[in-house]
Amino acid sequence: MKLHWSPRSPFVRKVLVFAHETGLADRLTLVRTVVAMSKPNLELLRDNPLGKIPTLVTDEVGVLYESVVICEYLDSLHGGPKLFPSSGPQRWRALRWHALGDGMLDTLILWHNERPKPPARQTPEWLASFALKTGTSLDALEREADELARVPIGIGHVALGCALGYLDFRFPDLRWRDARPRAAAWFGDFARRPSMQATLPVEG
Amino acid sequence: MKLHWSPRSPFVRKVLVFAHETGLADRLTLVRTVVAMSKPNLELLRDNPLGKIPTLVTDEVGVLYESVVICEYLDSLHGGPKLFPSSGPQRWRALRWHALGDGMLDTLILWHNERPKPPARQTPEWLASFALKTGTSLDALEREADELARVPIGIGHVALGCALGYLDFRFPDLRWRDARPRAAAWFGDFARRPSMQATLPVEG
Repeated sequence: MKLHWSPRSPFVRKVLVFAHETGLADRLTLVRTVVAMSKPNLELLRDNPLGKIPTLVTDEVGVLYESVVICEYLDSLHGGPKLFPSSGPQRWRALRWHALGDGMLDTLILWHNERPKPPARQTPEWLASFALKTGTSLDALEREADELARVPIGIGHVALGCALGYLDFRFPDLRWRDARPRAAAWFGDFARRPSMQATLPVEG
Repeated sequence: MKLHWSPRSPFVRKVLVFAHETGLADRLTLVRTVVAMSKPNLELLRDNPLGKIPTLVTDEVGVLYESVVICEYLDSLHGGPKLFPSSGPQRWRALRWHALGDGMLDTLILWHNERPKPPARQTPEWLASFALKTGTSLDALEREADELARVPIGIGHVALGCALGYLDFRFPDLRWRDARPRAAAWFGDFARRPSMQATLPVEG
């Protein structure tokens, strides 16, 4: 399977962490694909009309995109414990955590795109809104961190781990751990997993 | 169940169309919740730390967010034909279509936020990128429209229908139907469904 990949995309990292956790990393052929909001990648657009990464090209089911869809597909390919609980309260909890991680990333990426603009082209209300929502999301994570630590790893953990990893990579100035000891402790453990260590983002 | 709702959000519409299609619309209590990228809604942030709509508050499984998670939860509550195929190629096809619809909406919403700015605050490369990706996405939809028309309605149809509805609502100037007769024909039929007619966006 071919995965359109970049070493700095947190959504790509989510797929890679997932692949490592499920023993499928060797099945992925990584193709370096550079995308930016200001510069669409015309080659990628041939595989994925949205021009986003990650994009997975499979022989079996064609092209898949959206990182969570790719992860769920990968989950169908292995015989180990599933990272998507199949039903019931565990499934909704995992998908809520996943949505929290993905939603944080959506906000952080918009923020990261807005921050470097010259002040005259920034929208100050957006910057304030991004900061507020990131704070409320981290506070929610703090409240759920003990439960996260207690239950088996699933897609929610992977998404939240990648969101916090992106926060450390792009927003170290936020010092998010300061008032959130439980979330910091959970991420301290999670970040040591081989899947996370193998997929650290690199500046370049 | 309480649904944080707005009459103009295409992601809220997706949940409402889904609820109508699955006979669950009467189970939702709609709470008018206004959000904008420049103006977070503090009351909503108490239910959903991401500050996004739709947000569903349930007695059974707590709060759910991300429209597709809400839709999948609703799909678990009724005994009729499921709109999320449970496995196999049908599932990946439906989720790919869903991702195409959602991805179009993500781009269109960013575009809609960027267009009204004074030119000095716009990022011209973003506007060009949004136009390009919307075009390639619509072309992909044109290629798949006959298959869409042929298979039972699922979550993919709902997402694509809401994306095209949003295009008509916010971007009538694009005249997307002009070179895409198959997609136009499919949407012509889909838009006549009671679920779509009951959820038309209103200017306000």
